[in-house]
This record gives sequence, structure tokens and C-alpha cells, in this order.
Amino acid sequence: MTEHAQNISISVIGSGNVATHLTLGLFKAGVKIDTVYSPQQANRTVLAEKVNAEAVNGLDKLNTNSNFYLISVPDDKIETVAKQIPPVKGIVMHTSGMTGLDAVARYGKNAGVFYPLQTFSKQKDVDLINVPFCLEGTNEKTLAQLEKLAKLLSRNIYRIDSNERKYLHLAAVFASNFVNYMYNASANILQLKKLPFDLMKPLIEEVAEKIKTLPPSEAQTGPARRNDTKTMEEHRRLLSITDDELLEVYNLLTEQIIKKYHEL
Amino acid sequence: MTEHAQNISISVIGSGNVATHLTLGLFKAGVKIDTVYSPQQANRTVLAEKVNAEAVNGLDKLNTNSNFYLISVPDDKIETVAKQIPPVKGIVMHTSGMTGLDAVARYGKNAGVFYPLQTFSKQKDVDLINVPFCLEGTNEKTLAQLEKLAKLLSRNIYRIDSNERKYLHLAAVFASNFVNYMYNASANILQLKKLPFDLMKPLIEEVAEKIKTLPPSEAQTGPARRNDTKTMEEHRRLLSITDDELLEVYNLLTEQIIKKYHEL
Repeated sequence: MTEHAQNISISVIGSGNVATHLTLGLFKAGVKIDTVYSPQQANRTVLAEKVNAEAVNGLDKLNTNSNFYLISVPDDKIETVAKQIPPVKGIVMHTSGMTGLDAVARYGKNAGVFYPLQTFSKQKDVDLINVPFCLEGTNEKTLAQLEKLAKLLSRNIYRIDSNERKYLHLAAVFASNFVNYMYNASANILQLKKLPFDLMKPLIEEVAEKIKTLPPSEAQTGPARRNDTKTMEEHRRLLSITDDELLEVYNLLTEQIIKKYHEL
Repeated sequence: MTEHAQNISISVIGSGNVATHLTLGLFKAGVKIDTVYSPQQANRTVLAEKVNAEAVNGLDKLNTNSNFYLISVPDDKIETVAKQIPPVKGIVMHTSGMTGLDAVARYGKNAGVFYPLQTFSKQKDVDLINVPFCLEGTNEKTLAQLEKLAKLLSRNIYRIDSNERKYLHLAAVFASNFVNYMYNASANILQLKKLPFDLMKPLIEEVAEKIKTLPPSEAQTGPARRNDTKTMEEHRRLLSITDDELLEVYNLLTEQIIKKYHEL
């Protein structure tokens, strides 16, 4: 527990993956969790119990003396929730990549965004220490407060405005959701021959490892990268008899890689 | 050095990434490297020196008493090389995912395939211990010999026939080359706002980590997975003003993810 964490208190709205991971992280760092609200009674009770907080059954019952209010709910609910929080002096912040600061703008100088760039699952612990926290605040004082809070969790703190944050979120869809879709495509192809997905895991690890030291544009390998027509033809033949959808993906990505590296 | 490694000798044809990593690995495991041939004089000399072997300037000069002959050259050269190796009693094997056992079939019962499922770069060491070695041999005796050799390098040994190996190679294109293309797309999107690619690295690591314990079909997240129309519209708007090619990729993958998870 760091010394200044003891003087910080927070109330939490939400009980999903992001709310849960952040609240547990802050609690472990020594932050006092005052109240937890979520429409799901079971969820708010579970989360509140884990962090010695009071579970409340309405936004009007949130502790009004917390230093921070963390709104971690689906994007389309943020503005509605923000309207229903009773008058407070603390900083009100949401955790969404695609939602502007304006969704909490009614809190004036005390409005902020506290966006952790990571994927969180119920089943899996994530070490927050390396997670980039992307912060935005109405003014310098609020930003400094958000930074103080974020530093209790992570060593990667960034100031990112609402417009930049949207691009960040979009970039994350490619690096995360679409990457996982490629893993899944790979598993499906192996399944055609009853081969275990375990075969791919060392390769997947190495590819993710490689871009830590090499820009992805330089790390690109494969038949499209070296314009190996014979191999690509054989791949297309295999897909044309097994999976039309993956053939479409193969053709589009192959075309783009060839264009990028061979049609300068 | 393991005891039986001392009685094994090998000659190597090729000096590219795969040839180099495998030869160094075998040398470190205690295998005797007899001769190294590659058309590039500088490359064969460098590799031979590293493994106390003799660099030879023609296939006809390979040591004819080696236990194994590793052919690690571009796919379209394998058959030509195989034809030029002088008569030998050792096992002749290639390392290609997309090439059948038939490319070395002229060696009869002593023909094999020794395919490491990994991406190798000049700049980066790869620990071979977890690399899946996919082996094929004309008969049981040859396969047993290949397994003995592979076990000096790795604890992940698989028997994979030529047809299965093609699917494996195709699956690897999705899990490796196309994944890297997504990393690159992500970096390009960040570049539009001059945001550092470092922001993505913890996310990339976690996504690769997650599928070690969760099948990728269950690990799928993101706006397409939850059919979040508003976010997808905004992503498309951002791409339509910045990158038509990535918009095409976004549309195709999003459509397939929605179809998979929401049109059952």
C-alpha cells in the first residue's frame, strides 16, 4: 500500500470485466472503495464484498464524498448514468475507448476519462502494471489527479484526447479482435485434419514476441511477402475445397501484402 | 551434450534462416556437422565455421558418410538438389511445409521430412525446445531415426504426413503472417495520430497469452463479437476517411465475425 493511496477514495458504477479488474487493482493498491453500484444485484454484491465496500441499489445512494467516480458501463449507458449521479465534488470519469469526454461533461472541471488499453476476461487475472492507461481530463488539475490514481496501478500512463482515443480503439480492434480471428481461422483449418491447435502455440508466441524488437512492417514473412506464387496457388486450392469464407480472407490479405511489398 | 548425439553426424545443404537455426541447434546438442554446402560462398563459410564443419563448393563434395542430409533450400529447389546429392546411405530429408515427401523419394526407405513449425529470423535467437517438429519418413525405421534427431532439439515431436503438413502450413499463414499484417495495420492507424506502437504491445501480448488457456473461438471479443453497431459505424467512418484498404479488411472480418456469432 503506497502512502498517498490511503487518502484516496472511489465509488464504482458497473460490475463488468473492466470495472472488476480496475476496482480490485485499486483496492489492492490501498485505495478505499466507498460504494459500488450495478443494476445486477448479485454482481455488485460480489464485487463490493471483495473490496470491503458497500453495495448500493441505486445511483442516488452512492457515497457523495468519494474522490473519484468510476463509470464502467456499456458505451450507450454512460451518459444516462452520468446524469443520475447525485451532486458530487469528486472527479467523474468513464473507461470507454470510443466515448468522448463530453459524455461526462456535465461535471465540468471534474470530468475525466480513465481508459485502460487492455482486454479483460472474467476468467483471467491481468497484471495492470504494464497496461497503458490513457487519460483525459477537463483541465490540468483534473489530469494530474487522474495520473496520481493511474500511477497506483500502472507504469504506462499516457495523455490521450477523445479523438486520438478513437483511433487507438480502432487500432486495438486490428491488433486484438482481428488477430484472435486469425487464431480462430488457424484452429479451424487444423480441425479439418484433426490436428491439435497446440501445434500453433509456439509460433503464435514467437510472432507476438518478434514485434517487441522489430516493427511489424519489417517482421512480415510468408508466401505473399516473398511473392511465392506456387505456394499461394496451393493454399487457395486447399481453401477453395474447404472454406470459402477463409478463402476470401486469404485473397484480400494476400493481395494487400503483395501490393505493399512488391508494387512500389 | 547427450550421449547418443555424439554418434550422429549430418551434412547440411542451405544456409538460410531455417538451415542456420537447425544446424546451430544440432551442433549445440552435440551432433557432428560434417559438411555444409550452399551456393553462396560467404554464407556457407560463416555457417560452417560456427559449427566446426567443412564448407564445400559443390553438392558432389558433400561427405558421403553422414547419418543425415538436411536439405533446407527454397521449395522449388528441393528436388533439383536431391538429384545432385551423390549416392549416400544416410537419411535425406527436407524442411519444407508445402513440399511432399516425394521430392526426396529417390532416396527410397531413407527419405524423410523434418519440418520445424516456427518462424526464424536472422536477427533473433529462437529456443528450439518448444518448437513442434513435424516428421515424416518412408518407413517406421526412418521415422524412428528422425525422432531420435528431433528429440535432441525439441520436446514437441509430431508425426505429420505430406497432406496434413500442407494444412498445417496454411494454418500457420493465418496464425503468423496474417496476424503480423494485423499488427502492421494497427501500427499504421496509430501513425495517423502519431501515437507510439508501444501502446499496443501489452494488449498484443495478452491476446497471444489468452489462447494458451482458452480456445480462440471463446476468446473472441470486440464490437463485431457483441454486434455493437454504433462502434462499428464509427470505426468505418474513421477508416473511410483514412485508409480504404484497411476499411476493406475491417468490413470483411467484421462481417464474418457477426455471421459466426450472431447468425446461428
